[in-house]
Amino acid sequence: MKPDEFRRIVRKGEWTKETADACWGYGQANLIALPKEYAYEFLLLSHFNPRPLPVLDVTEPGDPHPRRVTRDADLGTDLPKYRVFVEGKIVAEPTDVSEYWRDDLVAFVIGCSWGFVWAIKDANVKYRSLGDYTTKIKLSPSGRLRGYMVCSCRAFPSSEDAVRAIQITSRHRAFHGPPVHIGDPKLIGVERIGEPDAFIPPWPTPPPEPYEIVAFWGCGITAQNVVMESKIPYAISHYPGHMLVLDKRVEEMALF
Amino acid sequence: MKPDEFRRIVRKGEWTKETADACWGYGQANLIALPKEYAYEFLLLSHFNPRPLPVLDVTEPGDPHPRRVTRDADLGTDLPKYRVFVEGKIVAEPTDVSEYWRDDLVAFVIGCSWGFVWAIKDANVKYRSLGDYTTKIKLSPSGRLRGYMVCSCRAFPSSEDAVRAIQITSRHRAFHGPPVHIGDPKLIGVERIGEPDAFIPPWPTPPPEPYEIVAFWGCGITAQNVVMESKIPYAISHYPGHMLVLDKRVEEMALF
Repeated sequence: MKPDEFRRIVRKGEWTKETADACWGYGQANLIALPKEYAYEFLLLSHFNPRPLPVLDVTEPGDPHPRRVTRDADLGTDLPKYRVFVEGKIVAEPTDVSEYWRDDLVAFVIGCSWGFVWAIKDANVKYRSLGDYTTKIKLSPSGRLRGYMVCSCRAFPSSEDAVRAIQITSRHRAFHGPPVHIGDPKLIGVERIGEPDAFIPPWPTPPPEPYEIVAFWGCGITAQNVVMESKIPYAISHYPGHMLVLDKRVEEMALF
Repeated sequence: MKPDEFRRIVRKGEWTKETADACWGYGQANLIALPKEYAYEFLLLSHFNPRPLPVLDVTEPGDPHPRRVTRDADLGTDLPKYRVFVEGKIVAEPTDVSEYWRDDLVAFVIGCSWGFVWAIKDANVKYRSLGDYTTKIKLSPSGRLRGYMVCSCRAFPSSEDAVRAIQITSRHRAFHGPPVHIGDPKLIGVERIGEPDAFIPPWPTPPPEPYEIVAFWGCGITAQNVVMESKIPYAISHYPGHMLVLDKRVEEMALF
């Protein structure tokens, strides 16, 4: 299915679940919309924390149309599920945020690792996804904004698979690039691997076997951690796992 | 010579010429300082025009110390020569801008292709530098900011040299990355190749021979074109060719 067709189905409210398998080969993205008075600080935060926050598009205040990465997407309706934050707290989790959108909101579209997942699968790299974790990796702060990096986690059955995944994801900086950590999850503050806290995927995530190599990639849910830690007065984000599907191919956005 | 030692010499006013051969293997950078009310628009401009404007550091308003890329540099004194702009026009070209610095200036430190030149030379790639040209490539605009891309130009004696240079510079996105154009200079509006207008280097630049392959890279002087085209009320930049030398190694900032 093509992305614009998929987004029309989402817009009608006929798809409200995860987008993991939607539109093979097309980019997927996180959403974070903030009052314009936070836009510069957030753009600077993303610039100096590019692994979790690779910005693909930024809209004008009040404009919900990310035209650099989609033809006609409306950010208020075209994601399957959202979160609305007030003073850093979740106040609603609707499937449409048209009525929550404000004229002062600047929307940031941020690459999602489900973009590079197609590339890893296409290369026949074996892995299993262990969901998303809030780590103790502190972001480089920006003005009033601070927080911790959320990471997606994957376990590889062999060194060959892990190294190949690092090589492949390095090309896809628009979708988080190479991993930020390999090995012992405790070293980045993840005490209970196999029990993801930031996004619990709809598949089992048993902890790694001793032979498996565990790797962590920056995740766009980091922006939601920043909203909460920095107590930003108002924000709208996607609901974890319920992404915007882009009209751009993942390969179109790769480095080489 | 180490960068901090070199910057001390510059600070004393004992080096006022080009920095092309200063501190082999260390990064070099453009400077553009703008009133803070232009900072967000400029950061967005650089985000969507990363080839000419790869931002390496951004300071707080009034702060001349780019701490992410240098230990102790003072942007008011540590570049050999500067330009001061008022309403988009050059009003002074001093060797020290301490007295021109203002409390509302946000400084952007932008990678210079003299960073990747070490990498090309180290790989024994043959080329000659033809200086910097104002092209007709329009930037993706941002708010009140618009302009044309300035490019550095190099001529290669063989396909092998040209392809190797493209491969090597692709790793160095902090220093403009791969070329934006290869081949006929007229296709990007450069009518008189061999007669650079944006930076005339202190070495001869005869036009290419028919066998030479000509390639253009984004150049940080683009920011000065934006200041002029957009008539920004006040700005301070480096004088072309007279760069800030960073404490970071070029390889330290490479992609892989």
